[in-house]
Amino acid sequence: MQEQNVFRTATVAALRDEERDLGFGSVVAGESRQRLLNQDGTFNVQRTGLSFLTSLNLYHTLLSMSWKTFIALTLLLYFLSNVVFGILYAAFGASALVDTSKIPLENLFLRGFFFSVQTFATIGYGTIHPVGVIPNLLVTIESYYSMIATALITGIVFARFARPTARIFFSKTAVVAPYRGGEGLMFRMVNGRSSQLIEVEAQVLFAYFAEENGKPVRRFDFLELERRRVTFFPLAWTIVHPIDDKSPLLNLTADDLRKSDAEILVLLSATDETFAAIVHTRSSYKAAEINFGSKFISIYNPTRDGEQLSIDIKKLSQIERV
Amino acid sequence: MQEQNVFRTATVAALRDEERDLGFGSVVAGESRQRLLNQDGTFNVQRTGLSFLTSLNLYHTLLSMSWKTFIALTLLLYFLSNVVFGILYAAFGASALVDTSKIPLENLFLRGFFFSVQTFATIGYGTIHPVGVIPNLLVTIESYYSMIATALITGIVFARFARPTARIFFSKTAVVAPYRGGEGLMFRMVNGRSSQLIEVEAQVLFAYFAEENGKPVRRFDFLELERRRVTFFPLAWTIVHPIDDKSPLLNLTADDLRKSDAEILVLLSATDETFAAIVHTRSSYKAAEINFGSKFISIYNPTRDGEQLSIDIKKLSQIERV
Amino acid sequence: MQEQNVFRTATVAALRDEERDLGFGSVVAGESRQRLLNQDGTFNVQRTGLSFLTSLNLYHTLLSMSWKTFIALTLLLYFLSNVVFGILYAAFGASALVDTSKIPLENLFLRGFFFSVQTFATIGYGTIHPVGVIPNLLVTIESYYSMIATALITGIVFARFARPTARIFFSKTAVVAPYRGGEGLMFRMVNGRSSQLIEVEAQVLFAYFAEENGKPVRRFDFLELERRRVTFFPLAWTIVHPIDDKSPLLNLTADDLRKSDAEILVLLSATDETFAAIVHTRSSYKAAEINFGSKFISIYNPTRDGEQLSIDIKKLSQIERV
Amino acid sequence: MQEQNVFRTATVAALRDEERDLGFGSVVAGESRQRLLNQDGTFNVQRTGLSFLTSLNLYHTLLSMSWKTFIALTLLLYFLSNVVFGILYAAFGASALVDTSKIPLENLFLRGFFFSVQTFATIGYGTIHPVGVIPNLLVTIESYYSMIATALITGIVFARFARPTARIFFSKTAVVAPYRGGEGLMFRMVNGRSSQLIEVEAQVLFAYFAEENGKPVRRFDFLELERRRVTFFPLAWTIVHPIDDKSPLLNLTADDLRKSDAEILVLLSATDETFAAIVHTRSSYKAAEINFGSKFISIYNPTRDGEQLSIDIKKLSQIERV
Repeated sequence: MQEQNVFRTATVAALRDEERDLGFGSVVAGESRQRLLNQDGTFNVQRTGLSFLTSLNLYHTLLSMSWKTFIALTLLLYFLSNVVFGILYAAFGASALVDTSKIPLENLFLRGFFFSVQTFATIGYGTIHPVGVIPNLLVTIESYYSMIATALITGIVFARFARPTARIFFSKTAVVAPYRGGEGLMFRMVNGRSSQLIEVEAQVLFAYFAEENGKPVRRFDFLELERRRVTFFPLAWTIVHPIDDKSPLLNLTADDLRKSDAEILVLLSATDETFAAIVHTRSSYKAAEINFGSKFISIYNPTRDGEQLSIDIKKLSQIERV
Repeated sequence: MQEQNVFRTATVAALRDEERDLGFGSVVAGESRQRLLNQDGTFNVQRTGLSFLTSLNLYHTLLSMSWKTFIALTLLLYFLSNVVFGILYAAFGASALVDTSKIPLENLFLRGFFFSVQTFATIGYGTIHPVGVIPNLLVTIESYYSMIATALITGIVFARFARPTARIFFSKTAVVAPYRGGEGLMFRMVNGRSSQLIEVEAQVLFAYFAEENGKPVRRFDFLELERRRVTFFPLAWTIVHPIDDKSPLLNLTADDLRKSDAEILVLLSATDETFAAIVHTRSSYKAAEINFGSKFISIYNPTRDGEQLSIDIKKLSQIERV
Repeated sequence: MQEQNVFRTATVAALRDEERDLGFGSVVAGESRQRLLNQDGTFNVQRTGLSFLTSLNLYHTLLSMSWKTFIALTLLLYFLSNVVFGILYAAFGASALVDTSKIPLENLFLRGFFFSVQTFATIGYGTIHPVGVIPNLLVTIESYYSMIATALITGIVFARFARPTARIFFSKTAVVAPYRGGEGLMFRMVNGRSSQLIEVEAQVLFAYFAEENGKPVRRFDFLELERRRVTFFPLAWTIVHPIDDKSPLLNLTADDLRKSDAEILVLLSATDETFAAIVHTRSSYKAAEINFGSKFISIYNPTRDGEQLSIDIKKLSQIERV
Repeated sequence: MQEQNVFRTATVAALRDEERDLGFGSVVAGESRQRLLNQDGTFNVQRTGLSFLTSLNLYHTLLSMSWKTFIALTLLLYFLSNVVFGILYAAFGASALVDTSKIPLENLFLRGFFFSVQTFATIGYGTIHPVGVIPNLLVTIESYYSMIATALITGIVFARFARPTARIFFSKTAVVAPYRGGEGLMFRMVNGRSSQLIEVEAQVLFAYFAEENGKPVRRFDFLELERRRVTFFPLAWTIVHPIDDKSPLLNLTADDLRKSDAEILVLLSATDETFAAIVHTRSSYKAAEINFGSKFISIYNPTRDGEQLSIDIKKLSQIERV
């Protein structure tokens, strides 16, 4: 295969080091040719033998699930808690849980359930109320449980808010477009939030399979950027890797990239002003997501004198043939 | 135009790089000559095509709005929630929501609204109380809703507090004043908070329009500072750019600055001791805000022996002719 | 002792500096040959004379205790608070704390205790209620106390959540295994959480006792690593110290290490993406935990085409003879 | 004055730069010879003209006040809120605020006050309850106010907890003691908390008055340290400035220091593991707090074999003549 030879020119020793630098392990086992990074920045890897760890990941899970799932989960917890306490209250009979309202709830479980709601939520209308020591002890336990559960939910709700994360929109495809007399690999991105990101820094890597001792081995190269860092990021940023003599992409065609299972890995770090914290995000482009011979159309809106600089985010991924 | 020639001396290639470094985009479209940074540090740019994003910005909006707006918004939410639940409670008639007080509320909506308040706030006097399964189910739903809403409000209230931000007061004008035998561009600032800022660092940029191929193009230059960083910031700091042979401001008059739409961009980062976090702030001076031939009066209060060093913040922007 | 001579070859002056760099003090007193770092990363040192400080450490204690202990402690606090207020309420007699339920609680302390629970938890059924100024004043005090106590518990619960910590699983033993024609000291680790760690950096030190002026003195050497830093850490990382000519481990046997009370100290820092904060962790290997002539078995699961890269964490510490 | 001459040997230009670097301003006005830093690390400076700022400092004030003051303040707020609402409730007469308990509170203000407590704290026994639209509207307002006030208090309580701060105990005096054949300026410190500080870094400055053009002017010199940084800080750290040929302290006596109003400024930064944040602290030693011809006694406890390394914090400031 002609294409593979192009890759084999790089020194093996140097590449092995890069490999480790990325943290995908010093031995890449088997023949997995799957992408390493999904486009949403998550790692396309698996860890087994974690059964004993599952319980440890509760916090991270609660933080990273969607609000919809989080609301559903807490609602379920709320409902189940009241079912359990409702059953316990009902267990001691109608005389231990008196309902003084005009039409008392005859169904003891319902009476217990609604009483539990009024207790957990610390409402306590008093029309249903406990009589005797054991029901009152149950109230004591539920009120403690309610305090801790509410503290946990309040804590997690805030932690979900206070967690600094970046929401960067990357263009759906990268392009290989004309650049300063030659060509360049380009993709662009905008900040998906209204908060400001500053000191934005990018690393771009080129992962591909090359043949070593007759076996395909995954390799990594850093791609030099025209500019690695911007101070502000109020509009859009087009990242450019100039395909010059030193570029590992020199003379590669779309077909070469496809055959070597090439993948462009993007790593971004930035300071989020809302959180005053450094946030990270990742993305990647597989060969099929790289468009040769196209360029991005201008993202800027035409402005008249007296108007602000302005971009149209809907144009982020729009390209045109050159 | 004679003035533009002064700017055109810098090499175009070098400037293009600076341009990108700032993050205002590699192509500055159209003829917009508006200031890039407002004096309060916000960017004077616009992003369109964001309609599908609006909902994502809720958190940042809730954090950065004024306390007045925040209180008004939560009050409205509180009122509307109780109106909705009040209507629902009222829908099942007077026998489902009994009022045992001496003079019961005859208006069913008012009874439902006040009952909702007592339930949402988890007060539950009990004089108004639910009768039957459906009103009790409504109470169950409202109490869950109340728990989550209260957690959200508590979380956002704290997030508003815990968010590290800097409040720097910049002098209203910059001056071009005598400095070490020549001249210097100067402005000064104080910390507007009683918390300490340390390791304060400044970057100052000079943005202006120059003619390139007959078209006005925005350019950027970094201005060298006499001192870029101070360890402490308990008093005031006067930032000085010496206008020497290497300065892009050399020989420029107030009129030159005005004609080229000049803007001095200031970027500040510092460690806030209260938050133990790095905070950032920005400001800018347009040509009309730069005073030639004036200097700042001393901000120090005269001290007698045995007295502390002392400054008068009211003098921050006070200048005098030289 | 032949073995000690091996160590004495390093220059004493250089070592003394390293010693201080580690922060274990410039004078290591006495003959303590205990390990410096426990395997869980805590320091094996003691500080006395702290009695007046004990109270200051409450926050750190509340944050670092287990959830089990924390729950037990708050439950105790909750119980005791209600006992105290219960006694106070009971002190004013049955006419000051009226129970209007069908079968009133005759035991005044129990009535006071359950009333306190209903007040602290802000339930307030109203069947037990205060009569007179003093019981109402007690309620005022308890409700304030309840507000602050709940705020504290909510705050600490969240602080326990929001505290960025790393949970790294280190292999139980280190090995001295073949490496690039020679040998290398190796150990490996995985991230024990499902959150991502990035920019992971390691420092490895070699602590041992050498003879100086006839007295055993603890010494420290930095061990050079094949790679000090990985960008990502989605799978496992094997840290390798090549035992080459410059290595202080050159020609040392398991027996040498044991006799000199050798200890390998590991310091790790990483950025946790969930918290957007830099976390630190430590571990150490004593001579008995270093296995000569073994190597780690591959932690990778075999993958077929179309499958993800995958590791089995259960194999983390598994070694085989070479 | 002979002593002043010693100081004047340093080049004035270089010192002027240091002066600014510290952030005490480029012009040190008047003749104030007060210390710059208090021993507790606060700045001994004053800022006037702040009247319009006072309100902005609420958050920092609430965070940095003692727990005792904070509790007193919130208790006052709680009491006053209930007094105001109590008066409002009472304003509408006994028929608008019915007390159904066996012995109703005849004093309308007391009835209003206790009802307000039961409402603010969301207890709502129901024995005192509102009758009519206006009292119920007041309840609506108070319950909203209570929700926001509780959120604020919970937020501030947590912010007080979550704020990363260092508590370093510095020795009460510094000493000029024998060091490697010459002398060194030394002071030592321990971590006052049980949480770990790592990567501890120190800067030490020497401030003094020297004569310039016949006027006393404050000058600053950085003091070189034997070691500027320790990786760990589990025990004690003795900071040493060797008084060698390059030291500005060379040949200075206690009397020289006193006459030139000398001050040793200490700046410390460290990573706190509990908070995973970088914390800062400061301290200073005036001439009278520097002891010539003494040295610190060993802070280590004698250890037997099998015992841990151990220090006695009570010995931190203990010195002995040499």
